[in-house]
Amino acid sequence: MHLHVRDGEMMRLVTPLSAAYFAGAVVMPNLVPPVADVEAMKKYEGRVREAMGKQNFLPLMTLFFREYGEEELRRAKETPGFFGIKLYPAGVTTNSDAGVSDVLAAESTLRVMEELGIPLLVHGETHGFVLDREEEFLPAYRALAEKYPRLRVCMEHISTSASLKLLEEYENLCATITLHHLLLTLDDVVGGKLNPHLFCKPIAKREADREALLAAALGGSEKVMFGSDSAPHPQEAKECCGCAAGIFSAPVALPRLAQLFAQHGALEKLQAFVSDNARRIYGLKVPGKVVVLRDEVMAVPECYRGYGQKVVPMDAGENLGWSVVGREE
Amino acid sequence: MHLHVRDGEMMRLVTPLSAAYFAGAVVMPNLVPPVADVEAMKKYEGRVREAMGKQNFLPLMTLFFREYGEEELRRAKETPGFFGIKLYPAGVTTNSDAGVSDVLAAESTLRVMEELGIPLLVHGETHGFVLDREEEFLPAYRALAEKYPRLRVCMEHISTSASLKLLEEYENLCATITLHHLLLTLDDVVGGKLNPHLFCKPIAKREADREALLAAALGGSEKVMFGSDSAPHPQEAKECCGCAAGIFSAPVALPRLAQLFAQHGALEKLQAFVSDNARRIYGLKVPGKVVVLRDEVMAVPECYRGYGQKVVPMDAGENLGWSVVGREE
Repeated sequence: MHLHVRDGEMMRLVTPLSAAYFAGAVVMPNLVPPVADVEAMKKYEGRVREAMGKQNFLPLMTLFFREYGEEELRRAKETPGFFGIKLYPAGVTTNSDAGVSDVLAAESTLRVMEELGIPLLVHGETHGFVLDREEEFLPAYRALAEKYPRLRVCMEHISTSASLKLLEEYENLCATITLHHLLLTLDDVVGGKLNPHLFCKPIAKREADREALLAAALGGSEKVMFGSDSAPHPQEAKECCGCAAGIFSAPVALPRLAQLFAQHGALEKLQAFVSDNARRIYGLKVPGKVVVLRDEVMAVPECYRGYGQKVVPMDAGENLGWSVVGREE
Repeated sequence: MHLHVRDGEMMRLVTPLSAAYFAGAVVMPNLVPPVADVEAMKKYEGRVREAMGKQNFLPLMTLFFREYGEEELRRAKETPGFFGIKLYPAGVTTNSDAGVSDVLAAESTLRVMEELGIPLLVHGETHGFVLDREEEFLPAYRALAEKYPRLRVCMEHISTSASLKLLEEYENLCATITLHHLLLTLDDVVGGKLNPHLFCKPIAKREADREALLAAALGGSEKVMFGSDSAPHPQEAKECCGCAAGIFSAPVALPRLAQLFAQHGALEKLQAFVSDNARRIYGLKVPGKVVVLRDEVMAVPECYRGYGQKVVPMDAGENLGWSVVGREE
C-alpha cells in the first residue's frame, strides 16, 4: 500500500519485482516534477503498466498534494486507476502548530476530497529533530481527523508507538507499516558502522517502537496495512557521501514478512496485514492473486541489475528462511 | 587531549597537521593490534615523532587498557612520553550493571594506577541503544570515581548534558569535549541526507545536549578540556557502505573553535578550553607554543592527500571565518 517504482530505466528494473509478488500497489507520485495533475498521472500509469509487463498487477495511482479545484478532483475520482492524494508536508516547520495550519490551510481541497471519498495519504513528519518529527506531526493528524471526520487519512509508514496510539483514537485514521520498521532500530543504521542501505525516512526508532509496530502487525490490528515504502536508489547514490533516504525492500518483502510472522507463530495474520485490511479499509477491488510462500531458502542477490541500473536490496547477499514458491493468477 | 594519528602512511599524512597547531596531544592507542605494552608504545612514539617532523610538539602516549601488573605500570610511569591508559569497554553489555562490574573487575590495575597517578581515559559507552550508550555508562564512571577517589578519570568525548552533570559531582572526574559535539546534532548526521563524514562515536545527540556542552566550554568550566578526537579514515572508507566512525577535524580544529568562541563573545575562554585546563588538571609540562589566530578566511581543502592517502576533513570545501596566521615556538 506504499510503493515507489520511480521512472525511466529504474522503473523498468524494479516494477516487475513488485508486480510478480503483489496483486496491486499504491504508486507514489514523487517524481521530479511530481505527478500533480490527471494527465501526468495517466501518462505515468501508462509507463508503469509498460514496465510491469503482462503480470496481473494493479497500480493504484496517486496525485501529489496541492490545492486542487473541485472539478480537478471530480475528474481524478472518475479516472480509472486513480487511488488517492499523497501529502508531503514540505512547508511544515519545526513548530508543530505551523505543521497543523499548513495542512489545514488547503481546506477546500480537503473538503472536496472528503466529500468524494478520496483518501489522503500523509508522510507525517515535521522538520524538527529527526527522532521527534513523526511525534511532532501527530497534532496535524489529530486536527485532520477531527475536522474532516469522513476523510480517510492514512498515516504512512508509521515508525513510533505514539502513532499507533493516535491511530486507535479516530475511526477515519489508518496506517501503513513497512517491513523495515518491523525489523530495524536506529542501531541498525548508525549503531555499529554506518549502513546507508538501511537509511530511510522516517528513520528507524527505538526498540520499544519496533516492538509496538510488530505487535500491531502480528496481532492482526485492523487499522494497519503493509506498505513496503520500497524506495530504490542506484547503488552509487546509496554508497556515497550524502546518500539518499530509502530502502529497496520490494523483492524480499513477502518472504521476509512470512519469515517474521512464522517466527512469531502468527502466519495466520499475514494475509490480513498484506492484503485483507487494505481491501476492507479502502473498499478496494484488486484482482485476485494467490502467492504461495514456503519455508524454503531464498538467496537474496547482492544487487539487481538491468537497464543500466544497479540497485542493492534489503538483506542483500543473505539467505531468507522463506521464499515464494508459486503463484496462481 | 584526545587524538588519533593512526599509523603508517595515514600517520605520515595527518600527524603534521596536528603538530603544526598544537603543543601536544594525547595519542590514542587503538591500533591493530592495540598499543598494550611499553615496548610497543615506545616504538609507536618513535614513529609518531618521525611523522611529525621537526615541529615543536609533544605526543603524550597512551596504553590500551588491560590488566597490567604493578611492575609494568611502574615501568610505564617511568617511561618518558607516557601519559595514561585508555579504556574501551569492549566487554560491556547492554546492561549497565555489567558495564560497571567489567570495569571494576580490573581492581588491582586500577588500584596501582591510582597509587602511581596514572590517568584512566575512558570511552564511556555501553553496547545499548546508540543514543543511550553514554548515559547508561554513567554508573560505571560513578563507581570508578567513588571506589578510586584519587584516580584521575577522564570521561572522553562526552556528548550529553547528563555527563556534564555527573562531572560536577566528583572531584576526580574530568572530561574532554570534541569540536564536533559543540557543533552537531544527530540531525546533521541523518536528518537530511546521510553524512558519513559526520558519523562518529559517541554519535551526536540532541540540540539540548549540544547547547549544554557549548555552555560548559564557553563558560570556562574548569573540568572540561578540548579533545578533538580527530579520527581520520581514508575517503573510500567513509564514503561507502559500512562507513567507519570518526571525524577528521585536526586541521580545522583551532580556527573553527576560534570562530565558535568569537561568535559567542567568549574568545577569552578559548585558551582555558584548549590548553590551560588540561595543564592544570593533569599537571602537564608541555613546551610553550604560541598560535596566533585571526578572523581571516581559511579555505578548507576538499581533502588532504599524500603518501597514497586521501582523507576528507570536517568542513571540507568551506570557508571558515578564522585562521591560524602565525606561530611562535
